[in-house]
Amino acid sequence: MERIGFVGLGIMGAPMARNLVAAGYELTFHNRSRRELDGATGVGTARAVAERSDIVITMLPDSPDVEDVVLGADGVAEGLRSGGLLVDMSTVAPATARRVHAALAERGVDALDAPVSGGEAAACSGELSIMVGGSEQAVERARPLFDVLGKATTYVGPPGAGQVTKAANQVVVALTIQAVAEALLLARASGVDPARVREALLGGFAQSKVLEAHGQRMLDGAFDPGFRAALHRKDLGIALQSAREQHVPLLATAQAAELFNALIAQGDGDRDHSALALVYERMLR
Amino acid sequence: MERIGFVGLGIMGAPMARNLVAAGYELTFHNRSRRELDGATGVGTARAVAERSDIVITMLPDSPDVEDVVLGADGVAEGLRSGGLLVDMSTVAPATARRVHAALAERGVDALDAPVSGGEAAACSGELSIMVGGSEQAVERARPLFDVLGKATTYVGPPGAGQVTKAANQVVVALTIQAVAEALLLARASGVDPARVREALLGGFAQSKVLEAHGQRMLDGAFDPGFRAALHRKDLGIALQSAREQHVPLLATAQAAELFNALIAQGDGDRDHSALALVYERMLR
Repeated sequence: MERIGFVGLGIMGAPMARNLVAAGYELTFHNRSRRELDGATGVGTARAVAERSDIVITMLPDSPDVEDVVLGADGVAEGLRSGGLLVDMSTVAPATARRVHAALAERGVDALDAPVSGGEAAACSGELSIMVGGSEQAVERARPLFDVLGKATTYVGPPGAGQVTKAANQVVVALTIQAVAEALLLARASGVDPARVREALLGGFAQSKVLEAHGQRMLDGAFDPGFRAALHRKDLGIALQSAREQHVPLLATAQAAELFNALIAQGDGDRDHSALALVYERMLR
Repeated sequence: MERIGFVGLGIMGAPMARNLVAAGYELTFHNRSRRELDGATGVGTARAVAERSDIVITMLPDSPDVEDVVLGADGVAEGLRSGGLLVDMSTVAPATARRVHAALAERGVDALDAPVSGGEAAACSGELSIMVGGSEQAVERARPLFDVLGKATTYVGPPGAGQVTKAANQVVVALTIQAVAEALLLARASGVDPARVREALLGGFAQSKVLEAHGQRMLDGAFDPGFRAALHRKDLGIALQSAREQHVPLLATAQAAELFNALIAQGDGDRDHSALALVYERMLR
């Protein structure tokens, strides 16, 4: 069994690491907040994690964190031996993923970008959806780990492809949230029960998981996360940055990102992303 | 069995009328283009249809057509006796539906607004989704007809509520099309196979019927209608008009409507609404 390293024991990382320990892996971890993890060994730096591991998993907040933890001083790159593998499961810019991949390749270290969707609940139950970019060989090597952490692993292509897929996912989810918010607002403002409208629409071509789950959240005003609006805004920033690099005009995504800005400015960045509906309601007051 | 009148034998109306005849209803119809219908009786005016019917169904292109055919000279209102019922299954403005309802109520005639979704295929197979506004009594009276024409009838509320629901439906579908178009464009521009991205996204929270069906259309460049872009633009106009009347800011819907304007200006109003993706592709040339 390969020795696993884990850097980043946040809301997502901690339950993922726990699932790997429970599956019998020898696991070394590092974490800024010096959190403990039963059955695993904590060390002081990402480099020390990598020195004791064959495969290192990182689960960090944003692109600069990944660049720093992997390529910075006392980072993963300094500790992993040739033949090692980095699996970055953070959601970061595709450009960051490609940069990390190229820098590690020079040292004979392979890398995968493998962001996830499903949130904390899926991280705990080992039912994440995992979107992977990198070499097919490396994916096969990491597959036993993915099988512990997730219920569906999709290999999408070369380095960065996993992050591009995640960005596309976040674009679709954000715009569908906005679609449902506008539709239910129109119904209510027109004197029609939005619960019946949601019900009617679920039976037809307007059906989506977002209409089902977040449509209900909007009806109930139930905006405890879930997935925090501020994180979705960060992910849309990644999509827009990638689009800018490719000169692709994402008109609707840009507008949705601005509405998330408003929601965050209103002090609700820590609420569920479906709280985007509140920005509309507040425009009416 | 009640005697049925039918006005408007277009792409949708013709198969709907045929299904009613096949179900054994005595049917009188009127149609601008003087089309024939086996087993039914054609007459020269909407008034003549109404004079021979207990329930009149209208299936017409737009709000002015319905106002004209129902309330105009030689219209349905002049022919229906007190106790009659108008079922308008066109997609029109909620304000039009309420106006028609009020005008007929003065004559002792009941009315339902009962727009449909599902398109020509569902009209032919009798599997439309029907969203109904009006009195519950009138809905019960019309239910045997709805059971012939559709697979799901949802009663949503008072006069106009059916049209509000249809408008909300068209908002969600248009914005989800735009979401899928932006996501797949971002993937392709970033060098990632959009077919794999669609597949990965279908397994998670970004899932929708639109991603499934129209995502595939975009991958194949298969834009034969389906549902014509020009008609969807008309429906978004209804949503935006209703929103304006209620002072509700539908930011994303307004943007999507403008992109449909571009598609129509480019000569593609008769292609499927999923051809909205072409507007994005053409921005890149």
